[in-house]
Amino acid sequence: MSTPTPELFFRSINAFHLTQALKGAIELDIFTAVAEGATTAKALAEKRQASERGMRILCDYLTITGFLTKANGAYSLTPDSAMFLDRRLPSYVGGSVEFLLSPMLTQSFDDVAAVVRKGGTVVSEDGTMSHDNPVWVKFARAMQPLAFGLAQTLTGPIKLDPNKKTKVLDIAASHGLYGLMFAQQYPNLEVVAVDWANVLEVGKENAAKFGVSERWRALPGSIFDVDLGDGYDLVLLPNFLHHFDPPTIEKLLRKIHAALGEGGRVVTVEFVPNETRTEPPQSVTFALVMLASTANGDAYTFAEYEKMFANTGFSRSEIVQLPVSFEQVIVSYK
Amino acid sequence: MSTPTPELFFRSINAFHLTQALKGAIELDIFTAVAEGATTAKALAEKRQASERGMRILCDYLTITGFLTKANGAYSLTPDSAMFLDRRLPSYVGGSVEFLLSPMLTQSFDDVAAVVRKGGTVVSEDGTMSHDNPVWVKFARAMQPLAFGLAQTLTGPIKLDPNKKTKVLDIAASHGLYGLMFAQQYPNLEVVAVDWANVLEVGKENAAKFGVSERWRALPGSIFDVDLGDGYDLVLLPNFLHHFDPPTIEKLLRKIHAALGEGGRVVTVEFVPNETRTEPPQSVTFALVMLASTANGDAYTFAEYEKMFANTGFSRSEIVQLPVSFEQVIVSYK
Repeated sequence: MSTPTPELFFRSINAFHLTQALKGAIELDIFTAVAEGATTAKALAEKRQASERGMRILCDYLTITGFLTKANGAYSLTPDSAMFLDRRLPSYVGGSVEFLLSPMLTQSFDDVAAVVRKGGTVVSEDGTMSHDNPVWVKFARAMQPLAFGLAQTLTGPIKLDPNKKTKVLDIAASHGLYGLMFAQQYPNLEVVAVDWANVLEVGKENAAKFGVSERWRALPGSIFDVDLGDGYDLVLLPNFLHHFDPPTIEKLLRKIHAALGEGGRVVTVEFVPNETRTEPPQSVTFALVMLASTANGDAYTFAEYEKMFANTGFSRSEIVQLPVSFEQVIVSYK
Repeated sequence: MSTPTPELFFRSINAFHLTQALKGAIELDIFTAVAEGATTAKALAEKRQASERGMRILCDYLTITGFLTKANGAYSLTPDSAMFLDRRLPSYVGGSVEFLLSPMLTQSFDDVAAVVRKGGTVVSEDGTMSHDNPVWVKFARAMQPLAFGLAQTLTGPIKLDPNKKTKVLDIAASHGLYGLMFAQQYPNLEVVAVDWANVLEVGKENAAKFGVSERWRALPGSIFDVDLGDGYDLVLLPNFLHHFDPPTIEKLLRKIHAALGEGGRVVTVEFVPNETRTEPPQSVTFALVMLASTANGDAYTFAEYEKMFANTGFSRSEIVQLPVSFEQVIVSYK
């Protein structure tokens, strides 16, 4: 065993440096500038009207944290940075900073000790779950590029009959991409999208962009209150159940069960930790985000979800690991 | 080459979670509670008057980030946590949070883009270098446990004649530990400690604690203004030069050179990056801390320090790597 050191503690307590430096790099749009050929601190400083000394120190830091490489005083993009941090590309994810570092989410973490004492958010009574919270408009716009890849892969394992008229309910639809990917693939498919009215404006724009506006309908309001109708073949539940406690989830699942037609399925997209809650790290971290930002949310295990679906009338649930995602998919059958 | 992913970006932009969760764990004194035998979320919640759900989610997060281990629902300390995060031990470093997350230092990182544009701190004109800034009293108290180990190892490579009357000047003495370790080891050694008056109170307490008050004298004020006297055998410069630009450092080194006796040495303790500024990571990161919190500070390479000492009359400088430290030592001879 090696001698104990306080290295991990100091690196971790100072981790906010990394958040803030990366936010600064995104704001200065350094990665696009490097992609465009400004590869030295001097060239970057000129291109971005910044100090050479500041650019050199920040880019050296971005080098040791894995976002750039450095050779002979010139910086280059890593494959990840070239794909995801060049603002000119559709795969650019830097816009997610608007949501991930929105005051709502950063303030949630201001007093983690108080959050742990209380067992839920201390920002407000409902945290991010308050009615028409504008953070979800930010989410819809900022997280689209990331959701796009995930939504596309979802149509792989979830097969539908292309010849049959199909009705899909997209819950907490947000940018609408999950339902829209199915609408794009299946010409006889109609989507009903539920979310706050302000958020559904983003989904409506995307429906037009994908040319499926006539088969995409907005149903604004709280999923717990609106009349869903019935006869759905597929209900999409992407990134929604984690905001609530099991009794609230079961209340919702009963309502969904009633709205599903015979042979219908629910597709839940979630951060699902393993049964001991020790991996994957993204899911374990996500539980902390829910603790800090909601009254009762959590990252539930598959066994917990399986039980909630069974309690509310579903015949069986199965877990599907998507090829490239931190999230898991649970398919539950009526 | 593997497929690019946005994983590093998302982990890094959310790095503030780690800072805040660890700060919360220190405030709740979770590590001491585990050491005292409260190893489940339930037992920890009872001991700390917190919610079980909150404890479980935070401790799972501390597990995936390397501060705890988990088996059969019970948490254990890692060797590092057991040594450095148990408040009952003198090796406890959790108190450093008072300095590392002081508003002065966190606010320095609020707008890194503005810092890079300007090339220095945007918090105030002088940042942490303003006269009598109270952050240095916090530093002196909070960073003592860490400095203690480093100060102890420093007397290893820096040998003095135990039979000779020896005069040491401890610049930016803070808690005074660097000078005090020498005073403790050499009974004929006297220390003159320079720092702000409010900070030297901490050094004075420590001098009494080590029983060397009669051989330790406070010289309050700015090192740039006070009359240092002369005939010093050893001048200690721990963690000070990084706050300034080279012309200011050279001005100080000239003053120190004049105060040194024949055969005298300067011992500089610093975060020294390699010549390409790509490692060690602590030194590259430290440059960013200086950029954000001071007007002109930096982490200088050995070649840069060597030049500054040569320019101001020193005959030669050599670098010494301490056995267990992120920092390096430069010894410069009159």
